[in-house]
Amino acid sequence: MSRNRKAVRVAVDAMGGDYAPQEIVKGAILALKEGGLEIGLVGAPDIIETELTKHDIHHLPLRSIRADEVIEEDEHPAFAVYRKPNASIVVATKMLKSGEADAVVSAGATGATVVSATQFVGTIKGMDRPTIGGPITGFAHDTVMMDCGANVDCRPHQLLSFAAVGVIYARKFFHIDNPKVALLNVGAEEGKGNELVRESYPLLQKSGLNFIGNIEGYDVLSGKANVIVCDGFVGNILSKFYESMGDYAGQWIRKKWKKYPLSDFGEKLINELSSLTKMSQEESMGGALLWGIDGVVMGMHGNSQAPQVAKMILKAKDVVNADVVGSLKVEMARISKVSQRR
Amino acid sequence: MSRNRKAVRVAVDAMGGDYAPQEIVKGAILALKEGGLEIGLVGAPDIIETELTKHDIHHLPLRSIRADEVIEEDEHPAFAVYRKPNASIVVATKMLKSGEADAVVSAGATGATVVSATQFVGTIKGMDRPTIGGPITGFAHDTVMMDCGANVDCRPHQLLSFAAVGVIYARKFFHIDNPKVALLNVGAEEGKGNELVRESYPLLQKSGLNFIGNIEGYDVLSGKANVIVCDGFVGNILSKFYESMGDYAGQWIRKKWKKYPLSDFGEKLINELSSLTKMSQEESMGGALLWGIDGVVMGMHGNSQAPQVAKMILKAKDVVNADVVGSLKVEMARISKVSQRR
Repeated sequence: MSRNRKAVRVAVDAMGGDYAPQEIVKGAILALKEGGLEIGLVGAPDIIETELTKHDIHHLPLRSIRADEVIEEDEHPAFAVYRKPNASIVVATKMLKSGEADAVVSAGATGATVVSATQFVGTIKGMDRPTIGGPITGFAHDTVMMDCGANVDCRPHQLLSFAAVGVIYARKFFHIDNPKVALLNVGAEEGKGNELVRESYPLLQKSGLNFIGNIEGYDVLSGKANVIVCDGFVGNILSKFYESMGDYAGQWIRKKWKKYPLSDFGEKLINELSSLTKMSQEESMGGALLWGIDGVVMGMHGNSQAPQVAKMILKAKDVVNADVVGSLKVEMARISKVSQRR
Repeated sequence: MSRNRKAVRVAVDAMGGDYAPQEIVKGAILALKEGGLEIGLVGAPDIIETELTKHDIHHLPLRSIRADEVIEEDEHPAFAVYRKPNASIVVATKMLKSGEADAVVSAGATGATVVSATQFVGTIKGMDRPTIGGPITGFAHDTVMMDCGANVDCRPHQLLSFAAVGVIYARKFFHIDNPKVALLNVGAEEGKGNELVRESYPLLQKSGLNFIGNIEGYDVLSGKANVIVCDGFVGNILSKFYESMGDYAGQWIRKKWKKYPLSDFGEKLINELSSLTKMSQEESMGGALLWGIDGVVMGMHGNSQAPQVAKMILKAKDVVNADVVGSLKVEMARISKVSQRR
């Protein structure tokens, strides 16, 4: 891609997702209209060209990049990435590595995106594997939970790295200088919990982060901590449980309300409650980022359509402009230095 | 205690809890009025006698049993049980072991109750340690979660035993013959999850229990499973998170409602919502039982007062009459037999 000063260059996997390439191409064009972007659509050139003829792309900084293969949702990620060096996600990721792109966005198979990013771009020093997480929306404010499911068996130094990621998240997207970090645990006192959190506690204590100790399940939504650190097994179950809560509360209220006429206000309340607890990637700044990769790689749901694709591309731009990855590298290096002091 | 045929003989720790002995003695007398019980109040005789003089206990099957020591909340449980052989909880537990009592109820330090029960009564074959858990009330029905915090680092055979406990719970208290058992996990497919659940899956499959596979966080409240099996770390965090939910939802609704006059109905709704998600031991049949102990030992909150004490004693009676412990022993033996077949 030609370098237009300040424009963020995004390599978009045009072949990944349930509605590829139509909705991906449409989304890319939508995003470009906001400005500050250059987009490379990665995929089969003839298919992409056919899509592009449907739109007025005159003067838009858009081009297509050849990639003749696609990795499907049901393929084994590692094998697929190995056997398909010309897969759209692989080509896009390599553009990030070579400096031809500033970010990658894909609605394709998440596993393949993770493998490809880890293999061709690599992780930041101190991070074994990428982590995913995001803000707890709804009843809570300025709270981010890391990890939400990428790492189900963790070691203590991983939890430390999740804390660093959460701190960068809170600084960049909540604009909190010194976010409060807590370990999710079964009790408030030091020494409580399973082996993992007991061993993680002292690492967090000497990390130089604003570590406030353990918090219990009661306090996830209380705002006591801006960054809630947990392994991905707990984070995944808790976030999905929370996502389901609005619907169950709404159903319950509707049932209770049966005897009374449900006013417009009541209907509105229930609908809002149902969507409130969804920890949507789409609504989340940087929630879809593969945190820990030494570059900006954003995954999104396979069922994403043009508006979601556009949103994600614009988020990738913000993540690049906020230098999220550079800040995380600095933070990880600082923690590593502090941790080596005894 | 003299054996009155069919009466359940409960040894009540008269010295344990924030309001001991006054509220404990009062609660015992309340419970006795329901019938079917004989109670031994275990503690310092003079203190108990002083309390008893305040009440009309004529003809009530109540006596006091001497125990000159008390284990305090802040003592190390194992040391305290070792150093205080005449502590009220120790004496009460030994009465269970010797057959002088059918059940023990205590509002004293939980740790000491667990250590005392494990040491002097022992666990059922196949259970390493006692487990605690209980029904998920509120938005869910006929759903019990095991373990809720007693075992934070688990091995697969422990998760299997939690499943057996949950099945007995559902049979005895939900009256479901063949309860559906699920493993709480990050994905529905076999092979998903952390090491613990991946290794537990095949054990549950060949257990002969009605194992329906994995369920995700979304489905905890859906009723898909009657028995949700998880380690105590996850169970504790999830149940506390759930307990807090009603309050946060209530606060949110109240805020939304600000512009409108909050009707009596609205106030009622919010109050009900707030208490709805509390997984209270008090409301739970057998939720306070130390499951896995080879006898009926019920713990309760230190702040329990007479009505709660009475409730718990009556629950102990129900647990004895339903032969919960005997049924669990049979189930554990059956699972052990099935599991040894290859």
